[in-house]
Amino acid sequence: MDLKEIKHPSDIKALSIEELKGLSEKIRQFLIQELSVTGGHLGPNLGVVELTLALHHAFDSPKDKFIWDVGHQSYVHKMLTGRTDQFSTLRQYKGLCGFPKMNESEHDIWETGHSSTSLSAAMGMAIARDIKGEDHSVVPVIGDGALTGGMALEALNHIGSEKKNIIVILNDNEMSIAPNVGALHNILGRLRSGQKYNWVKDELEWLMKKVPAVGGRLATAAERVKDSMKYLVVPGMFFEEMGFTYYGPVDGHDFDDLFNSIQYAKKTEGPILVHVITKKGKGYQPAESDKIGTWHGVGPYKIESGESMKKASNGPGWSKIVSDTLMKVADKDRDVVAITPAMTVGSKLEDFKKKFPDRLFDVGIAEQHATTLAGGVATQGLKPFLSIYSTFLQRGFDQVVHDICRQNLNVAFGIDRAGLVGADGETHQGVFDISFLRDLPNISIMMPKDADECQDMVYTALEHQSGPIAVRYPRGNAKSAPEERPLQKLPIGKWEVLKEGEDAVILTFGTMIDLALDAANELEKEDYSIKVVNARFIKPLDSKLLKELYKSQIPMLTLEEHALKGGFGSAVLEFFEQENKPMPYVKRMGIPDRFIEHGSVNELLEEVGLTKSGVMDQLKEMVPTKEKRA
Amino acid sequence: MDLKEIKHPSDIKALSIEELKGLSEKIRQFLIQELSVTGGHLGPNLGVVELTLALHHAFDSPKDKFIWDVGHQSYVHKMLTGRTDQFSTLRQYKGLCGFPKMNESEHDIWETGHSSTSLSAAMGMAIARDIKGEDHSVVPVIGDGALTGGMALEALNHIGSEKKNIIVILNDNEMSIAPNVGALHNILGRLRSGQKYNWVKDELEWLMKKVPAVGGRLATAAERVKDSMKYLVVPGMFFEEMGFTYYGPVDGHDFDDLFNSIQYAKKTEGPILVHVITKKGKGYQPAESDKIGTWHGVGPYKIESGESMKKASNGPGWSKIVSDTLMKVADKDRDVVAITPAMTVGSKLEDFKKKFPDRLFDVGIAEQHATTLAGGVATQGLKPFLSIYSTFLQRGFDQVVHDICRQNLNVAFGIDRAGLVGADGETHQGVFDISFLRDLPNISIMMPKDADECQDMVYTALEHQSGPIAVRYPRGNAKSAPEERPLQKLPIGKWEVLKEGEDAVILTFGTMIDLALDAANELEKEDYSIKVVNARFIKPLDSKLLKELYKSQIPMLTLEEHALKGGFGSAVLEFFEQENKPMPYVKRMGIPDRFIEHGSVNELLEEVGLTKSGVMDQLKEMVPTKEKRA
Repeated sequence: MDLKEIKHPSDIKALSIEELKGLSEKIRQFLIQELSVTGGHLGPNLGVVELTLALHHAFDSPKDKFIWDVGHQSYVHKMLTGRTDQFSTLRQYKGLCGFPKMNESEHDIWETGHSSTSLSAAMGMAIARDIKGEDHSVVPVIGDGALTGGMALEALNHIGSEKKNIIVILNDNEMSIAPNVGALHNILGRLRSGQKYNWVKDELEWLMKKVPAVGGRLATAAERVKDSMKYLVVPGMFFEEMGFTYYGPVDGHDFDDLFNSIQYAKKTEGPILVHVITKKGKGYQPAESDKIGTWHGVGPYKIESGESMKKASNGPGWSKIVSDTLMKVADKDRDVVAITPAMTVGSKLEDFKKKFPDRLFDVGIAEQHATTLAGGVATQGLKPFLSIYSTFLQRGFDQVVHDICRQNLNVAFGIDRAGLVGADGETHQGVFDISFLRDLPNISIMMPKDADECQDMVYTALEHQSGPIAVRYPRGNAKSAPEERPLQKLPIGKWEVLKEGEDAVILTFGTMIDLALDAANELEKEDYSIKVVNARFIKPLDSKLLKELYKSQIPMLTLEEHALKGGFGSAVLEFFEQENKPMPYVKRMGIPDRFIEHGSVNELLEEVGLTKSGVMDQLKEMVPTKEKRA
Repeated sequence: MDLKEIKHPSDIKALSIEELKGLSEKIRQFLIQELSVTGGHLGPNLGVVELTLALHHAFDSPKDKFIWDVGHQSYVHKMLTGRTDQFSTLRQYKGLCGFPKMNESEHDIWETGHSSTSLSAAMGMAIARDIKGEDHSVVPVIGDGALTGGMALEALNHIGSEKKNIIVILNDNEMSIAPNVGALHNILGRLRSGQKYNWVKDELEWLMKKVPAVGGRLATAAERVKDSMKYLVVPGMFFEEMGFTYYGPVDGHDFDDLFNSIQYAKKTEGPILVHVITKKGKGYQPAESDKIGTWHGVGPYKIESGESMKKASNGPGWSKIVSDTLMKVADKDRDVVAITPAMTVGSKLEDFKKKFPDRLFDVGIAEQHATTLAGGVATQGLKPFLSIYSTFLQRGFDQVVHDICRQNLNVAFGIDRAGLVGADGETHQGVFDISFLRDLPNISIMMPKDADECQDMVYTALEHQSGPIAVRYPRGNAKSAPEERPLQKLPIGKWEVLKEGEDAVILTFGTMIDLALDAANELEKEDYSIKVVNARFIKPLDSKLLKELYKSQIPMLTLEEHALKGGFGSAVLEFFEQENKPMPYVKRMGIPDRFIEHGSVNELLEEVGLTKSGVMDQLKEMVPTKEKRA
């Protein structure tokens, strides 16, 4: 069967196990080939080829509901639902999304870029099904990493007590995006090495029902014996305790085992968890032998060697600059402690971990815990640095409000992936953090324009001992490496004039600085004189400088790679509303009030008008023509 | 021993158990007496009298670290740390806080108004202790309700794998602020009825160590037998599986049992969970017999009968207006489903639960799950209404962003306790939700000025089938009951002119409407003509009306019981920045950039200047004097 012939999951219904094996092979080759050009989440998808085939063979999507948690393991699902011919556009502008996407297919019923949401969504769908009196299966497929997220555990707790029919597929590949941590991981490890027990259990329960009913203390004792006997044969007691039937372990690459377990699950009443063991990267040697998560998501690579074809960039990655600085400070200051929620690799903290194993805490996918943990460390006078992606900090928001800002604790936040992130798209854009952070009392927020400033900001954050402070930095690479020199503490709330000018001023920071300078320099040729200010503190603002600008009465343009609603530009408007009357002439450029899909960062900036020409046009509109000025 | 003589926990160190019993009795009488006047969290504190005494007797605060989760159970702790004489000011303006407060005492090392934070904080403190090479105990006291919060489970998972010395006191009173739900609750129920097992377990482990080491498959088999034998005698397997030593159940009102268990915990290596059973309301009959949470937090009451002395208010509570409307709609529309995270009582959903038991889902303290659950329900075409306090919605923030707004799902949010909440103070003020919600694409946000408008807004939210929509409403009571009439769907984004005027306009909503009208009417006497607009949609704004106002060139005052940073006033500034040049004359009034402590709502409004005279002064400053106008 040719892959591109598959337009609907029903096209594979008639296939035998032998034919499915053949199809698996073709799918693997296709993915290895296509992703070598486009890049993408190779490892996770090679791991779920047989599982996805078995699920689509055994269930009827979209009547039955598949929820992929996290959605980067949905490529095979996309292929089986008629999207094979779109893979050359994967994660590219206007192309196939790297996650489930409702507007791509009726088979994508829930979108998942952040982890651990599937069980709650599944419970919602099961509730709706039962209220509507419908009859279909709800099948969340959740990774072992996603399972440790607090909301997944909240959902387990609820599902386990409500006894609705939900078939949870636990896709256990022993690592999420990085090797897993935590007690649950250890539990899964013990289960993985165990034997299947379900039939034994069934027999036991049958036997137990034969025991005549007894009353009072004897009944309790009998219950206890019954429970204990279950423990004796049931390895999945953790899940059984939570109210689930546990079935496993299942070999996720063996169709017989998969089909048997799915059949068992279908006839089980109440929630069941099917523990499927898969191998990330299965069938592609370089990915299979990956131990730290390098092949989780990749750029283009050479198929034979697995060698990355990523274009060399001039400077080091922003994450690396931050972690190098962190190491430099930690080397001299024993009080520095790094905390990350499952992003040791993503945020380039491997070297820190090697050098200071006792001072790096990777808590797994657990952003809430990570945030308050940092707060707890801070109460004892140490200097926690919480390294977290902008989009994932949303998970720790209440902890930032209630635990960190309200208690005014000295936590340094390293907000990674701030701004547009590109190929991961709308679930991962870091374009809301200024809005949701700057309304909180006590916090300071910075963003560096280059590697040099970045290292000073990390140092400033760690040295700042009067409340929480964040340094946000983008995905990707800086233009050049930071200078080797003693680190400097920046004065809080002090901006920097990068270029003088009299006709207008651009107030901006971070990734937009170069754009602003380019636009200003280009306009110079047309006889405009544009001042450029590095507003490196997003909070607090530089009130002294703003007051001077007000006096000079020149038009002001704020420019940010962030949502316009509630962002930096709004902070500037608020400042003048409070300080001055009448308001000066201020215009704001930034990201409009809609979610921004995937594409290269440059394509996305173009889409929202954050370009050199966009800035130039805006400034020309604001500044009287030369004739008028004269 | 007189209660007021206790200035430091060391003052009770020498007391015998008999003396401690006498002290317990005095403490109970004191609390029952004092809280009958001030109100407060009576039930939880009567439940922890012996537990708190035993902890302070056995440990050395502040060297040893107590963390109270949630902090409303810290009254006895406050009494033992020298604050007994301040209880007449409890929860009052500038008085004793109802939660731990660092600036009150060196013994309050962590502040907890929101639940489930204690384990993360404790882990942070234990990490710091070990890095610093210190030696002290870290003792989080966590309720059974708080334990189901996702972040507590994340923390359990982390603590259980890191093996640090932490003594978790699980204060299990079988209900948190309401009867508990979920599988964990069932687990605790089974444990409560069990026998203590720890010595059996110790013997067993000693025996196991005697088994000679064996290799290969045999070793695995031996491990399995060992594990199974543990299961046979260990009731707390859930916690043991999570990496904790489980000790319990302990009678939380028996000093002998408490002291023995604390001694056992102190000598245990690694994390231990001591399962203490307490009785909420212990020693005061009306509170002891409470089954639904009425005595969790109370106003003044008559000691003999327990009868509430709350002053009769004119209108029904806002929560009640919302839930009544919800019932009215649900009665005709089978698609309406109500969801609440442990706030069935708080948000007055008991009647809904009785009438529609299959359409009310109380998920316990699990805001993340509640939010995404609502999203899952919405994907299937039903109409979920998520009833949640403003301050607790912070916990579900990422779920609002990633699951609800990004997928543009038809979830109706009932944001309860929006604005200043009074006595609960800074951990509970609902003054950030506009800032963190209005930057999100797709969502609409409303707030009613009165009961009548409130019922229409609830109806509008449920009928709005083009994306998420929120109606926020305050704590406390409306002035009057809503009119009995057919519900009306409000046109999205349309404001209402309540009073005409030519000199200036107040743009406001919700609780500030009356203030605005009062101020405008008062100024009428001084010959000012002030227009008042009910900006009932906070998002989207009424652009048509705003454009008309711009044309009329009158000064505008925005007025909101919400943080100024990023709030409604900022949205108005943003609007004019985008639409018009030059900016009109706009001033904003609202809550400044700091956390607002406890007090009556009126005292707090006074503190931040949101008063009639404050508004009048601001308007006078903005409007030219009569002479100038003429």
